[in-house]
Amino acid sequence: MGDISFSNGISNGNGFHGNGHSVGGAQRKSCWYEEEIEENLRWCFALNSILHTGATQFQDIQLLDTKPFGKALVIDGKLQSAEIDEFIYHESLVHPALLHNPNPKSIFIMGGGEGSTARELLRHNTVEKVVMCDIDEEVVDFCKSYLVVNSEAFCDPRLELIINDARAELERREECYDVIIGDLADPIEGGPCYQLYTKSFYEFTVKPRLNQDGVFVTQAGPAGVFSHTEVFSCIYNTLRQVFKYVVAYSAHIPSYADIWGWVMASDSPFLLNADEMDLRMKQRIKGENRFLDGKTFTSASTLSKAVRKSLDTETHVYTEGNARFIYGHGTAYKHNKA
Amino acid sequence: MGDISFSNGISNGNGFHGNGHSVGGAQRKSCWYEEEIEENLRWCFALNSILHTGATQFQDIQLLDTKPFGKALVIDGKLQSAEIDEFIYHESLVHPALLHNPNPKSIFIMGGGEGSTARELLRHNTVEKVVMCDIDEEVVDFCKSYLVVNSEAFCDPRLELIINDARAELERREECYDVIIGDLADPIEGGPCYQLYTKSFYEFTVKPRLNQDGVFVTQAGPAGVFSHTEVFSCIYNTLRQVFKYVVAYSAHIPSYADIWGWVMASDSPFLLNADEMDLRMKQRIKGENRFLDGKTFTSASTLSKAVRKSLDTETHVYTEGNARFIYGHGTAYKHNKA
Amino acid sequence: MGDISFSNGISNGNGFHGNGHSVGGAQRKSCWYEEEIEENLRWCFALNSILHTGATQFQDIQLLDTKPFGKALVIDGKLQSAEIDEFIYHESLVHPALLHNPNPKSIFIMGGGEGSTARELLRHNTVEKVVMCDIDEEVVDFCKSYLVVNSEAFCDPRLELIINDARAELERREECYDVIIGDLADPIEGGPCYQLYTKSFYEFTVKPRLNQDGVFVTQAGPAGVFSHTEVFSCIYNTLRQVFKYVVAYSAHIPSYADIWGWVMASDSPFLLNADEMDLRMKQRIKGENRFLDGKTFTSASTLSKAVRKSLDTETHVYTEGNARFIYGHGTAYKHNKA
Amino acid sequence: MGDISFSNGISNGNGFHGNGHSVGGAQRKSCWYEEEIEENLRWCFALNSILHTGATQFQDIQLLDTKPFGKALVIDGKLQSAEIDEFIYHESLVHPALLHNPNPKSIFIMGGGEGSTARELLRHNTVEKVVMCDIDEEVVDFCKSYLVVNSEAFCDPRLELIINDARAELERREECYDVIIGDLADPIEGGPCYQLYTKSFYEFTVKPRLNQDGVFVTQAGPAGVFSHTEVFSCIYNTLRQVFKYVVAYSAHIPSYADIWGWVMASDSPFLLNADEMDLRMKQRIKGENRFLDGKTFTSASTLSKAVRKSLDTETHVYTEGNARFIYGHGTAYKHNKA
Repeated sequence: MGDISFSNGISNGNGFHGNGHSVGGAQRKSCWYEEEIEENLRWCFALNSILHTGATQFQDIQLLDTKPFGKALVIDGKLQSAEIDEFIYHESLVHPALLHNPNPKSIFIMGGGEGSTARELLRHNTVEKVVMCDIDEEVVDFCKSYLVVNSEAFCDPRLELIINDARAELERREECYDVIIGDLADPIEGGPCYQLYTKSFYEFTVKPRLNQDGVFVTQAGPAGVFSHTEVFSCIYNTLRQVFKYVVAYSAHIPSYADIWGWVMASDSPFLLNADEMDLRMKQRIKGENRFLDGKTFTSASTLSKAVRKSLDTETHVYTEGNARFIYGHGTAYKHNKA
Repeated sequence: MGDISFSNGISNGNGFHGNGHSVGGAQRKSCWYEEEIEENLRWCFALNSILHTGATQFQDIQLLDTKPFGKALVIDGKLQSAEIDEFIYHESLVHPALLHNPNPKSIFIMGGGEGSTARELLRHNTVEKVVMCDIDEEVVDFCKSYLVVNSEAFCDPRLELIINDARAELERREECYDVIIGDLADPIEGGPCYQLYTKSFYEFTVKPRLNQDGVFVTQAGPAGVFSHTEVFSCIYNTLRQVFKYVVAYSAHIPSYADIWGWVMASDSPFLLNADEMDLRMKQRIKGENRFLDGKTFTSASTLSKAVRKSLDTETHVYTEGNARFIYGHGTAYKHNKA
Repeated sequence: MGDISFSNGISNGNGFHGNGHSVGGAQRKSCWYEEEIEENLRWCFALNSILHTGATQFQDIQLLDTKPFGKALVIDGKLQSAEIDEFIYHESLVHPALLHNPNPKSIFIMGGGEGSTARELLRHNTVEKVVMCDIDEEVVDFCKSYLVVNSEAFCDPRLELIINDARAELERREECYDVIIGDLADPIEGGPCYQLYTKSFYEFTVKPRLNQDGVFVTQAGPAGVFSHTEVFSCIYNTLRQVFKYVVAYSAHIPSYADIWGWVMASDSPFLLNADEMDLRMKQRIKGENRFLDGKTFTSASTLSKAVRKSLDTETHVYTEGNARFIYGHGTAYKHNKA
Repeated sequence: MGDISFSNGISNGNGFHGNGHSVGGAQRKSCWYEEEIEENLRWCFALNSILHTGATQFQDIQLLDTKPFGKALVIDGKLQSAEIDEFIYHESLVHPALLHNPNPKSIFIMGGGEGSTARELLRHNTVEKVVMCDIDEEVVDFCKSYLVVNSEAFCDPRLELIINDARAELERREECYDVIIGDLADPIEGGPCYQLYTKSFYEFTVKPRLNQDGVFVTQAGPAGVFSHTEVFSCIYNTLRQVFKYVVAYSAHIPSYADIWGWVMASDSPFLLNADEMDLRMKQRIKGENRFLDGKTFTSASTLSKAVRKSLDTETHVYTEGNARFIYGHGTAYKHNKA
């Protein structure tokens, strides 16, 4: 695939004097990207090159060319998106919510500066308007320049790009949306996005901005047999306090070395079976999905016994009160995932 | 959990003079186990200690105490089994096949020297006899000594332990089994277990040893969105040539950093739905599963679009003819997984 | 060599069932010790085994069996001493000072709990008494048990072992010594040993406890072309404020991945040439040195242009006043090297 | 210092949008260069960027921007030269030989494509002609483009650059030189440069091309307490068979994580003391050395007891006969150091 490509004229690091000689083994493995998945666990990719390193007002950015996963966007030392498998994350985030809505015309993305979420949304022929609200203009500009796979999306006239805090923007606006999407960093207490995962935010900011049959969906952190207790089960439980119908689902993303989770919520029931979902995909989505279809969603939303049990018994609810978040501390905002 | 424990009197490396002082940060991360998942991809665990290092006639063995995954059995430099999540692998390998059989009494395990497969089998109250046939006596003895979680299984009078090549043993025996289980290394051509994955082996050695309604199940290698093309899809396709009904399923195993696959095959159809499977579990299995129940199996056996497509279109069949396997080269046999 | 040996009955990790099979390549490189020499620089040794991990009242201890450097003592995540090359450090610390003294009978070691400094001292036939004062009884006990190369030294009747803070002990005592040796952690401000490197400590505690012609010598941290500015040049300059004659010297220690430095000071001049030093070695030292002789010391004490220049122009003096050391905070004391 | 600089317009990886924000800690340590010093020993540098990756007809090349050592040239997976400390290697290789010659006018460099050896030579006001003979035109072009610190040298009219095998070139030429310098890869048997270290090469090719009082000097591999037995002692011993006077010396190079060695040989005695060497430096060398002066050379050429002993007793001589080198196999030639 060519989802993320590197568009400008900088060489890809393999064309020295254009002689096409193959690069030897010793060299191939001498440079590595290393991520601490957790304190005692590392995940390391051999590197072809470091395409870009920089810092914006809010965060540090790297664009790496990795051997196992292709081009990779790293924000604040954490892998956000890899060329080879970002389609799994973005198809899973976007399509289930839109397909369960009878006629999704207007969408609001909180975060999403990479552009891939907008790209997937704009494949839906029902969609008339996408508002993408990211706080970091430089990241958006960076992704516009470097991720050619999303350049069509960035140019789509249906896309309205706003640079602002997503909460402030949603509170400021009076219009409602058919789908609101949370493509944000995890709700670490004191972290930049914590308040965008709280019960009161969902109740008083998100829900009032949803149309009839509106659907809210958010990325929801790691969802493995052990890792789902970090934030996945709490996001699920918090949304259960606010919406009548809540569906948690998950999928393995190879470059994350883990299962990832999403939670979808609405006051209208989610009634599509696999075949109905496949039918709507055919009717509404331009091109073919690589990862998601009706059966895949059935499987993704049928969690394993261990995870189901935790979600059923989870009691923690994210609230402003029990967080250590400091209001108005603008520099703490970082609208990145994971 | 305490699945794998370290049973003898050697200290666990944290009890220096019994003073209970907490160990500082610097020290905690200075020793690492590093596995090359593939040439360009490394997976690294912080270590508490190296409990054992040694070599048998067939393979090299290490028992490590890792920080993220507990005790870990490493054979020939590859993680086989980690204390914290081996239950996912072994519940998935054993229970679906036994539950789909109307009354599984006699079982044959090819490989399985670790003892965990036998442990799960012996939880079934229908089981009267388990033949475990592993080629490496020293690994079996090692696991008997070190993995206390399996010591009850090793002592169970229903277990018959045979040290032999699994193929020779199956060919030698005249009795049939209700379930035959492949708990072996992947079918790398020229590798120790290749011939135990071929069409002719399944057709002329395994199938004749199955009773009416008999089920064969085998571990089937990595099954991720990309990694399933290594061996998973070929094992599936090879079994399709031999059995009327074949079910491929998969689950994420955190310590493997990937989705893992299994394939189950029979000439009788697999008809249980999730509720019926749950009912049989209650009736037949002692204690409660941690990972697998009816819904989990439904999800596990509903593969994602990308994987399903590959499996449907796979044409490769493992045969003796197209392998480079050399007959009678006993030292090449290594009955380990992965 | 057998400098540090592992004395008790625990297997060395290579004797699995005593079959003597050689250990395969994959296994040989899967476990690693990793040290951050500095934030951006790592030094990694393949491991045979982790012989011991523990914590004392003052520090964390590990005894590792490394492939490139043999058994290695690690304190608080920093390599202290490796079996294969500790002789370079300890011969360099001990012999020049003793040889320059006309008749060294009584010695005081600040720190030195490992026992190797005492071992080298006790090879001198002039030595009648060695006081070794280390604050951490458990480290001393640990080294007594595990480092058989030093067990003879620990049993030598000339050795008096004191568990105390070296400063308090020197102040408490009234006797004087021919040589005082600092075998302590580097003088990091706020660190456990800072006050044992200050001008006032040298002036008011060390110097009054030296006999006529007495020599003080201390380890003095990294002494490479770049690294010597960390502490080596400052220790040298501080001693220049207190003693008439000061000699800095250095040597490469492979397991440290750097040149290491020592500084020797006295109010009597250092007059021995290489031949005279060799002669005294023959007369006074039992057995033969592996690293140090007269020419080696000539070379070691002739610093390269870059380092000499820095030492000549260094102006920083360690004083209690400009340190952030907090008096009486006993738990901060850690009498380990480097 | 600015010895090696990166001359063209590619950004240095820290100038994202020119906003000058400091780059966060997590990011700073996520990319690493890793070199296997030996099988069980790794040396790892944090990376700013990978400036270039490519392959020539003879070898693979990388130019890295490392955090601890600045820009680094890596050939076939081995660090050749780092911006921050290459002056130690090149001052040591060049100046002792030239200073010991009464009036060095013409110099022949075998290898040296990086240009730094030529740069140091051309600082001598006696030098009228430098022939630099490297086999790999692409490496020379690469270094010309990227290493601005050497661009003045590459433009010096006294430099004659030849692309050829150094042995063939020396045999072809009839003129003689005051100094011949070997700036080549180590003499691994079967390796590209082995035959340029043999007794017969020294005797029948090098020596006949030296003028009266001519000096030959060569890099001579690792020279640490343990590592000197790899090639250093053999090169020394081989040159002793051919020349009347041979001097071995060594110095620590931080980026190599080891002591490095050189050997200088002549049929005229080396008589300069430290002061005479300093005087000649003043008279002949433009600018000031950073590492080497008379005292530094005294120290460098006074080897430690352990190394001296090995050199004295070394019996191995490099000969064509006992090598596995295949004549005329041009592609095997790689004129790189280390």
